[in-house]
Amino acid sequence: MPDRRNPTACLLIIGNEVLSGRTQDANIKVIATRLGEIGIPLREVRVIPDVAETIIATVNEVRAKFDHVLTTGGIGPTHDDITSECIAAAFGVPWEKHPDAWARMERHYQPGEFNAARQRMATMPRGAELIGNPVSIAPGFTIGNVHVMAGVPRIMQGMLDWLAPRLAGGPPIISRAVHAVGLPEGRIAEGLAAIQARHPGLDLGSYPYYRPAGNGVAIIAKGNDPAEAEAAIAEVSALMAALAATPIQGEPPM
Amino acid sequence: MPDRRNPTACLLIIGNEVLSGRTQDANIKVIATRLGEIGIPLREVRVIPDVAETIIATVNEVRAKFDHVLTTGGIGPTHDDITSECIAAAFGVPWEKHPDAWARMERHYQPGEFNAARQRMATMPRGAELIGNPVSIAPGFTIGNVHVMAGVPRIMQGMLDWLAPRLAGGPPIISRAVHAVGLPEGRIAEGLAAIQARHPGLDLGSYPYYRPAGNGVAIIAKGNDPAEAEAAIAEVSALMAALAATPIQGEPPM
Repeated sequence: MPDRRNPTACLLIIGNEVLSGRTQDANIKVIATRLGEIGIPLREVRVIPDVAETIIATVNEVRAKFDHVLTTGGIGPTHDDITSECIAAAFGVPWEKHPDAWARMERHYQPGEFNAARQRMATMPRGAELIGNPVSIAPGFTIGNVHVMAGVPRIMQGMLDWLAPRLAGGPPIISRAVHAVGLPEGRIAEGLAAIQARHPGLDLGSYPYYRPAGNGVAIIAKGNDPAEAEAAIAEVSALMAALAATPIQGEPPM
Repeated sequence: MPDRRNPTACLLIIGNEVLSGRTQDANIKVIATRLGEIGIPLREVRVIPDVAETIIATVNEVRAKFDHVLTTGGIGPTHDDITSECIAAAFGVPWEKHPDAWARMERHYQPGEFNAARQRMATMPRGAELIGNPVSIAPGFTIGNVHVMAGVPRIMQGMLDWLAPRLAGGPPIISRAVHAVGLPEGRIAEGLAAIQARHPGLDLGSYPYYRPAGNGVAIIAKGNDPAEAEAAIAEVSALMAALAATPIQGEPPM
């Protein structure tokens, strides 16, 4: 496994809209990629509904299991936005007015517009530290190892940009790839397993693809050591050539 | 909650490629939508890596918790395809040659091409029933309440088309929507909570949107009773009008 020396992360996507099929998730790939770059590999994702007991139990399970937990969704002003109060319940701390968040939002709104619903967005678990939000005004927050962000992709992205440089990561997870058109996975599998066995410090993934330019298989080596990843990909390339396929460095074009 | 009378489902996405950010998930929305149509609401999704202990423990946890578990990924011929043997371990049954699957695949390949790697795709937990695969030859399977499918979207889709009509569902989950351009969530929140409180049989979701045609908020009512969903949406429309916004039936255009 490549992440032996790396802290780990879990992502909780909180909200009925992904579970119902209403909304296509756009956050997993962005968060996974960014966390990989800072050496905090994403090890699990859970999508859970806006149900208090589920949120509380899940937060407590995963914050004990992973070094970092990132959450998205459920921090807006409406009745179905219950993430913040559930995080307070999970940590067993009061859910109360956060002075800084409150002051920011009070300044932002016209007199009379900072109503009860919006005040909920400035109400946080005691001890929460704010996560900056350059897009809209309501901040996210960190408590313990749990980082609470918005679900709307462009707001989430702004919060992630603020958060990521402040997380203590590990060595970056790098990847190298090679692919071959017309080569079925079933022909490369045996030789690939032998290459994986020679490189226990890497994860070798095998991904068939179906593209307008042709079908084939892409092999990706992931780990902390670029030289070892390149060595493994060279071995895979030789294997492909031995099977009368043409190895092409990198991922296949979309 | 709308699913009081509905069986529930959990989706396990098995594979490092979504967790690493390499692959954009394309299966959640398709599976969630289809399950909603047949009245088996998706209540949780987990994305987990190709790690045997994680797969086994997760399968055993969620098959006890939900009426149906669907899995995608990890049933190909390569060393990182370990879903099938992990499901056998989770159920405590032997992982062995499945006579039907074996016969189908043996017929499909040229003599000598049904090699050891491909034979793994015809090796299944004892008692598995095959899930048809109209796209490529290797079948998925059902054991107990766990339905094991491929991860490649067009193969998954073929298996889902086969599986869905064979699952005993509940009343379909229907939804009705209304949206208003220029209306911030924070202004509608209080009235919306009152409407939700009057309709405990529905889930009312509030989703801000940011579209070229304008920003606004969409309200979706989900449940089993179309008349109640329409009544709630009529109340939301009246609330929007009272806030000097123009309610537009349906979801905002993409």
